[in-house]
Amino acid sequence: MAVHRARGTRDFLPEQMHERLFVLDTLARVFREHGFEPLDTPAFERIETLTGKYGDEGDKLIYRILERGEGGREGGVDLALRYDLTVPLARVVAMTPDLRLPFKRFHMGPVWRADRPARGRFREFWQCDVDIVGSTSTLAEAECIAVQHRALDALGFGGVVFHLNDRRLLRAIARHLGIEDREASLLVAVDKLDRIGVEGVTKELAGRGFEPSAIEGLWSILLGDGDPLERLAHALSGDEDAARAVADVRQVVERAVQLGCPADRVRVEPTLARGLDYYTGPIWELVLPDADMGSVGGGGRYDGLIGMFSGRDVPAVGAALGLERLLVLREEGGAAVARRTSAPVLITIYDSERPDPSLVAARVLRDAGIGADVHTEPRKLKAQLKYADQRGYRFVAVIGPDEDREGTVTLKELASGEQVRLPLDGAAGWLRGRLQA
Amino acid sequence: MAVHRARGTRDFLPEQMHERLFVLDTLARVFREHGFEPLDTPAFERIETLTGKYGDEGDKLIYRILERGEGGREGGVDLALRYDLTVPLARVVAMTPDLRLPFKRFHMGPVWRADRPARGRFREFWQCDVDIVGSTSTLAEAECIAVQHRALDALGFGGVVFHLNDRRLLRAIARHLGIEDREASLLVAVDKLDRIGVEGVTKELAGRGFEPSAIEGLWSILLGDGDPLERLAHALSGDEDAARAVADVRQVVERAVQLGCPADRVRVEPTLARGLDYYTGPIWELVLPDADMGSVGGGGRYDGLIGMFSGRDVPAVGAALGLERLLVLREEGGAAVARRTSAPVLITIYDSERPDPSLVAARVLRDAGIGADVHTEPRKLKAQLKYADQRGYRFVAVIGPDEDREGTVTLKELASGEQVRLPLDGAAGWLRGRLQA
Repeated sequence: MAVHRARGTRDFLPEQMHERLFVLDTLARVFREHGFEPLDTPAFERIETLTGKYGDEGDKLIYRILERGEGGREGGVDLALRYDLTVPLARVVAMTPDLRLPFKRFHMGPVWRADRPARGRFREFWQCDVDIVGSTSTLAEAECIAVQHRALDALGFGGVVFHLNDRRLLRAIARHLGIEDREASLLVAVDKLDRIGVEGVTKELAGRGFEPSAIEGLWSILLGDGDPLERLAHALSGDEDAARAVADVRQVVERAVQLGCPADRVRVEPTLARGLDYYTGPIWELVLPDADMGSVGGGGRYDGLIGMFSGRDVPAVGAALGLERLLVLREEGGAAVARRTSAPVLITIYDSERPDPSLVAARVLRDAGIGADVHTEPRKLKAQLKYADQRGYRFVAVIGPDEDREGTVTLKELASGEQVRLPLDGAAGWLRGRLQA
Repeated sequence: MAVHRARGTRDFLPEQMHERLFVLDTLARVFREHGFEPLDTPAFERIETLTGKYGDEGDKLIYRILERGEGGREGGVDLALRYDLTVPLARVVAMTPDLRLPFKRFHMGPVWRADRPARGRFREFWQCDVDIVGSTSTLAEAECIAVQHRALDALGFGGVVFHLNDRRLLRAIARHLGIEDREASLLVAVDKLDRIGVEGVTKELAGRGFEPSAIEGLWSILLGDGDPLERLAHALSGDEDAARAVADVRQVVERAVQLGCPADRVRVEPTLARGLDYYTGPIWELVLPDADMGSVGGGGRYDGLIGMFSGRDVPAVGAALGLERLLVLREEGGAAVARRTSAPVLITIYDSERPDPSLVAARVLRDAGIGADVHTEPRKLKAQLKYADQRGYRFVAVIGPDEDREGTVTLKELASGEQVRLPLDGAAGWLRGRLQA
């Protein structure tokens, strides 16, 4: 029987898992140190919770599940796998009226999209989200940016740059140019700027029927010289919404810097559009200047989404990091953790019918908090050492007839070849010294 | 719009998540210290991977997913949510011919069953599995039992008792009584012993058409006095398979004890049947004698399952802990972690238009590795303190006009009411002293 995984999914073997878990643990620690609380939601939701939140294209990518009634009878299709972690959060907030606001949560977990599998695009992939629900303050945006900066710093990406904009500014520009009725079309085109350039977007806008004068006006506002916020404030003077957006973006930058982001790493970028429909205020993306890769994360304010469930307006800011891209970049940069075994020590056995001294040694090391694996197979010592070497243990603890008689153990560090024979009760101390060195 | 979760699923709010993550982290640490490597597999599998592995009743509980073709076209039903973590492991082993054996892995994650939701029975729940693939040695069973013992000990359940049996012994008894053609029916009835007692099982066996003499013979073997292994060896003398099973069970017990399980906690229990079809050798269950709860875990040898995928026989031993039951027992026993916020400190703001000194304080504490949350809302100090109290922060760092002018911060421990005003650069040291006390 030929065996296959489901298309577009992956298994993670231990050599990948050690690194994935290191990154997830690091993110969780930083998120917690910034006051974000853990939340988890089910893999599937009622289908009506998900549909209509991601646009028509998104709806097509939602995986649908057959309901099973009592005794396994099949009903209709009424469940669906979650498509992101934001809509489930909005549902939880709506279902928890006594939740104390503001509510800061993080959520790291898989989401599923029936997308066409391609290099780097999977049908199951992980998102790492932080959100602040219930605050209209720009402190919320600044906190999300600050925690993302610190999280990437902890993963070795201290040079991350935040490109910041505001959805209201793009809307005000459309209003200013008299094309506010085609704002969505404008957004889709401008969103392609870093892929197809000014010329490409100009062509696309012309193809979408925008007048040359509007296109010219657009570029003069988006791409002029000098401080971008001053240019926007000047070009859009008299537009109250734009004035508020300019003030908010300025505050977000200031506050993010006070929270520890280097000032030259938080940049206003008026061309930033971001795809998602639901943003209503400041938006941002994270870029690693030295990496040949699109953005590794982003965020923004979405004050309308939760109200779709709860019937009352609840402001919110959210930000996400893309786990898979970060892992690729760590791998390429040589930063991935190299640890290849869970336990650093493999204990050999010399008589598979009577492995007693090796089992006692395992108990002693584990009692002392030293991770120790015991070889289970009746193999020659040479084969056991080869297994240790191939698997990548850091130490081997050999117990042969001599060690058994003496109550000792021979410890060998595989990389250096250094070797020592010690009484069993001295083994944990020697190993701890090496592990901490 | 009324909002609902999918039936039989749960959200985990922070107060539950802190405890769940503590338990999962503890299990992962102990599993690693015993040499088990992390593995992760997708939530869904091709449907033919899952069907036919769990019996007819199991197959009815498998959630099936509609395939989506390119552009969102719906195809047939060709995917299914995983029902346990063992079959995905068997698939991975079959698809990874160069995997070095023995392979020890742990896997903790959700599984899905379209079961009738009831108190304590969910459609999404977590399993915490360890398995050793590729070993015929009883060291594999002993290691699985030892790691489960140590994991429960680390969670405060040092008194766990292992009930041990062997599938081959039940088969030999059936052979001995001349009822080997109805072994499956016998197993189903005996499996109900702790729920319905000897009388109940006797009735059930009679109802299933077993002769009174066979039933009497069964009880005399299963329930006699003295050492159960000696009794079984005597009653089944001449049966080679039974002799091997008795020797193996004896070895498993001895070796588990050498690895650190207290001798009085590993007991042979000839009536133990365990439900799953695929066991082929030693089997066990974990019971907490003081808890009013069925087993909290179990395990056993399944030498045939992986061969269903790979076409070559690969021996394997696996063991699972039930996360949800452990959490209930920790809660009832008062052992659940009480920490209520991710970060121990809430920093107040006194001027929401100019929160600068509070943001700087947050940066300083976070730089020092102290988790700190900043209040984001323009509320009076009293309301901010009430929020801190309700959310359960351990400390509040108050920065008002005086502190701002002086470059100080007032730190208050909420439980004791103790309060101190310190220069900002002394705050981290004071807090660290309290947190470590």
